[in-house]
Amino acid sequence: MKKIAVLTSGGDAPGMNAAVRAVVRKAIYEGLEVAGVFNGYQGLIEGKIELLQLGSVGDIIQRGGTMLRSARSEEFRTIEGREKAMKQLKLNGIEGLVVIGGDGSFRGALELTELGCPCVCVPATIDNDINGTQFTIGFDTALNTVIDAIDKIRDTATSHERTFIIEVMGRNAGDLALWSGLAGGAETILIPEEKYELPAIIERLKSGTGRGKRHSIIVVAEGVMSAAELAERLKVEAGIETRISVLGHIQRGGSPSARDRVIASQYGAKAVEVLKEGRGGLAIGMRNHVVVNYDLKDVFEKPNVFDVEMYKLSRELSI
Amino acid sequence: MKKIAVLTSGGDAPGMNAAVRAVVRKAIYEGLEVAGVFNGYQGLIEGKIELLQLGSVGDIIQRGGTMLRSARSEEFRTIEGREKAMKQLKLNGIEGLVVIGGDGSFRGALELTELGCPCVCVPATIDNDINGTQFTIGFDTALNTVIDAIDKIRDTATSHERTFIIEVMGRNAGDLALWSGLAGGAETILIPEEKYELPAIIERLKSGTGRGKRHSIIVVAEGVMSAAELAERLKVEAGIETRISVLGHIQRGGSPSARDRVIASQYGAKAVEVLKEGRGGLAIGMRNHVVVNYDLKDVFEKPNVFDVEMYKLSRELSI
Amino acid sequence: MKKIAVLTSGGDAPGMNAAVRAVVRKAIYEGLEVAGVFNGYQGLIEGKIELLQLGSVGDIIQRGGTMLRSARSEEFRTIEGREKAMKQLKLNGIEGLVVIGGDGSFRGALELTELGCPCVCVPATIDNDINGTQFTIGFDTALNTVIDAIDKIRDTATSHERTFIIEVMGRNAGDLALWSGLAGGAETILIPEEKYELPAIIERLKSGTGRGKRHSIIVVAEGVMSAAELAERLKVEAGIETRISVLGHIQRGGSPSARDRVIASQYGAKAVEVLKEGRGGLAIGMRNHVVVNYDLKDVFEKPNVFDVEMYKLSRELSI
Amino acid sequence: MKKIAVLTSGGDAPGMNAAVRAVVRKAIYEGLEVAGVFNGYQGLIEGKIELLQLGSVGDIIQRGGTMLRSARSEEFRTIEGREKAMKQLKLNGIEGLVVIGGDGSFRGALELTELGCPCVCVPATIDNDINGTQFTIGFDTALNTVIDAIDKIRDTATSHERTFIIEVMGRNAGDLALWSGLAGGAETILIPEEKYELPAIIERLKSGTGRGKRHSIIVVAEGVMSAAELAERLKVEAGIETRISVLGHIQRGGSPSARDRVIASQYGAKAVEVLKEGRGGLAIGMRNHVVVNYDLKDVFEKPNVFDVEMYKLSRELSI
Repeated sequence: MKKIAVLTSGGDAPGMNAAVRAVVRKAIYEGLEVAGVFNGYQGLIEGKIELLQLGSVGDIIQRGGTMLRSARSEEFRTIEGREKAMKQLKLNGIEGLVVIGGDGSFRGALELTELGCPCVCVPATIDNDINGTQFTIGFDTALNTVIDAIDKIRDTATSHERTFIIEVMGRNAGDLALWSGLAGGAETILIPEEKYELPAIIERLKSGTGRGKRHSIIVVAEGVMSAAELAERLKVEAGIETRISVLGHIQRGGSPSARDRVIASQYGAKAVEVLKEGRGGLAIGMRNHVVVNYDLKDVFEKPNVFDVEMYKLSRELSI
Repeated sequence: MKKIAVLTSGGDAPGMNAAVRAVVRKAIYEGLEVAGVFNGYQGLIEGKIELLQLGSVGDIIQRGGTMLRSARSEEFRTIEGREKAMKQLKLNGIEGLVVIGGDGSFRGALELTELGCPCVCVPATIDNDINGTQFTIGFDTALNTVIDAIDKIRDTATSHERTFIIEVMGRNAGDLALWSGLAGGAETILIPEEKYELPAIIERLKSGTGRGKRHSIIVVAEGVMSAAELAERLKVEAGIETRISVLGHIQRGGSPSARDRVIASQYGAKAVEVLKEGRGGLAIGMRNHVVVNYDLKDVFEKPNVFDVEMYKLSRELSI
Repeated sequence: MKKIAVLTSGGDAPGMNAAVRAVVRKAIYEGLEVAGVFNGYQGLIEGKIELLQLGSVGDIIQRGGTMLRSARSEEFRTIEGREKAMKQLKLNGIEGLVVIGGDGSFRGALELTELGCPCVCVPATIDNDINGTQFTIGFDTALNTVIDAIDKIRDTATSHERTFIIEVMGRNAGDLALWSGLAGGAETILIPEEKYELPAIIERLKSGTGRGKRHSIIVVAEGVMSAAELAERLKVEAGIETRISVLGHIQRGGSPSARDRVIASQYGAKAVEVLKEGRGGLAIGMRNHVVVNYDLKDVFEKPNVFDVEMYKLSRELSI
Repeated sequence: MKKIAVLTSGGDAPGMNAAVRAVVRKAIYEGLEVAGVFNGYQGLIEGKIELLQLGSVGDIIQRGGTMLRSARSEEFRTIEGREKAMKQLKLNGIEGLVVIGGDGSFRGALELTELGCPCVCVPATIDNDINGTQFTIGFDTALNTVIDAIDKIRDTATSHERTFIIEVMGRNAGDLALWSGLAGGAETILIPEEKYELPAIIERLKSGTGRGKRHSIIVVAEGVMSAAELAERLKVEAGIETRISVLGHIQRGGSPSARDRVIASQYGAKAVEVLKEGRGGLAIGMRNHVVVNYDLKDVFEKPNVFDVEMYKLSRELSI
């Protein structure tokens, strides 16, 4: 293998730039040429491809977003689109591709691998919802953004003795809500993986007030219900007044945390190592503190593992 | 005067604690006794009053919220409530009161002054909407919180080439939207003080796209319309897709900025100075870089002055 | 076991409060009474012991430092001192002790265990230098503080095309320098675990300049040499001008990161679990993503494991 | 006037980029062409000049440092150097120049004005030490960086009951030390503008300890003496143990605060307005909340005004 490329796809996550940087630097260290594909798979189809140098990735490790940009591509979902992509890869002499993104992006990588271009995937999404890896790039930064918001809201909650409901991202995965709720000292955490019972929540809120607790914070993953809906139900069913805060897109941005920069560096370098050996159809990830590569198909076929212990801990500490 | 008291009232604002600290320390420096009233006017009615020492305000200058807490009081709106408050002031030997809060809180102070207890008001609200002062405590911190959010959202906006609408606080006053929009590099800023024209906004968005601009940020004060409404109108009237972010309560919290701590210290100390002279019915504020005191009635009777020059500047720089 | 106590000892680390909170809440959840010992082992000798409630640890999860305070104790190093400590434990009906701190503090815990009071230790130090655990509380926060400083210094380094030497904490352990250097995009990282060769560093600096690199950042652990000494040597031996920055005590403070709050919660709860079973002489830690307990003696007898892979990665990515 | 240029010079300050952006955008708004000079006066001599467009200053308002870079120039101090600079200006059709920097940079601007190229200066330095303006760009950001450091150090100071000495920038001007000390709640502040008396400082430290104060923070401007020297003197003369922290270069970097971005936008735009009228030899600044322009010579001939009131306040609040 003489030349590889790298692209970012799907929702952006802090640390994507650090991963791009690692891919480029490791590739050059290994004597490979490396190109950047701009605007994700759509850019690949359109041939938005540029050779990258060490200097191309200077001063980006600390930046949020992705210098390669990202985009949706309806065209890539068609076989014609993917063949155009393959043509561009050949035209540019690219023999392997690193795809940085979430599981939607990984599907594309699997298909390109099957069409003959070995792809290796680097998991980057703030939701931490990719099967086979315990950590995705961006999760740690998003977590810190969420607890910063919780800390700010606690100032008002304490001063006014109020209950706040904070809605965080996570349609199918509750990791962001669970970890941030635990780290933010939330009294109640609602996640898609665990059933909630409204009467029990109401009971907790009331017993807290009973023993003189001045404020309460509830963290809810958007996949369970919206903060507005929960507020409405607490009001209707128990007469409890709450304030809501929907954190929204700020969770996606910001300078990556130290940890996200470190795992982005590890994942990016590992992806090049694997690709250099001519292997494709693989994902990179972290398992029990070790950087591993595993079959891309596992991402789609195996169930995501939920950390029940941590949920139990969050319950015990919020008595 | 031998003994004064201090309370915080209305929505909390970062820097209230720094102001409480300044009142307490300056009072003790001047040889006065100083008491803290907890839970605002409601706490005053209920006699939640404690003598404060230097140590009572240690390690609070950097904290958001208010250690004296705040609360609404329906009872204080009645003459019976205010008479109970006066009784508590007498009972505790309090001869003057510093009220830290927004204009709603200032009304109460005016009424107490008229009942015989001289009150001096310190403006603290993130909205910067109090007549007679150019800056209120909390505004600068909120501003920095908002631009931090805008910077984060810009990461995603740039990476995905999208238009974002960011809704910030401000029902009647556009200062937070205007300053943060200017500091955040927003292309369009909508504030209550200036008429907006949707066709012109649409035109700007389209011309930006026309010359290759990859993303756009619109800041809208909640008093103009909600981000959701603006998004809907842009979609319906021009087919423009946008994402929205409602910053909400995070704008109220956080450790106060250096500037808010400084003006809180200045205002708090000035309030004690004025009160010590036996003067009440006054507000403290900043006018052209000078800390001043002025008639509390001006807060309600004079119109707030809007900085037209800054609005003009924001337009010129966002061509 | 009916009643336990908790103390913090040694240098403070962000997340100590979150660990104290977890110990208290988990203990109460398990039906135990829990006391706080103030000012570390010295306070234990002096009987500075108070029963803690849920409310005692409210609103502290986000605070740096330690609410139980910390102190050195010469007296505790004597057998007389430790016997006084044992007497206080008995006097207060304390049957087990959680010690939160670094390895110096762990020695004391081992000795108290041998005198009959089972102790369980929770590792908290920004240096991440405790044998038997991959992560200590405070390391992740310090890491983020350091990269924030590196990012700031990079602004000036880039603008002025200069080389900066940044000195970080770490007398015997290079983890903070290594991780922060990797995450901060440093060109050169000097740690106690790996020999450095000045000529090679000079060579790298010169070759960077040769290919148009505008600035360079060197991270050095204090255990290798001071930034000032390195600057002097680069000037004398190669005529290279550098600027230095000694980060110092800011590395110890600040609101703990999400991750530090999470592991502090896990460690604190685990310590109570183990102690409740009547077991002492143990340390809590993280091994390959699992929270474990292990023999306290391992802390002193086994060598700390250094992550050679990460050092190699840092070299490869800084070509 | 058809074409102007902009350069940054001297030590970098956060907000320089926001000022460059404002100059470029305002110039284009006014129908002028605008060029950027890279590497300060040295780059001007060498003809490192590029035409800038709206897109050239996209996404920089939030960045520290300066995209135009800065450099020292010995050559520019000679008449030959300045004549080369003039030649380049003519060669590039540049009829006016905006110089963003500190007072050293302003001298160069005065000399170029005298040689026939009208220059307007924008004050940007974290030291806030330029005569004729109450605020310089970068001061507010540096202030927030310093109080963030003080807040972190206070965590350790409180936990260990220690006295810390924090050394901040400021050779001739104490504004950074004074404002940050006031905002950081420091007990003692040493600045070049006011004499200090060691016995009084010692007295304060001891009386604090006497009444149970657990920690103390001293802020010293580097122009008074180094933190190390003060620590030594406190130890020798009164046996007081302290820890020191030298903040150093982190004070220069970081994303500019909201306020610095706003005044940078105001100053930059004002500079273009003035220059467009063909006027040179002027500085831009803030006086009593109004953006003004004034004779450049005043910068060198009039004494800087020190805010005695604020110093007095800091003393009264730190009893």
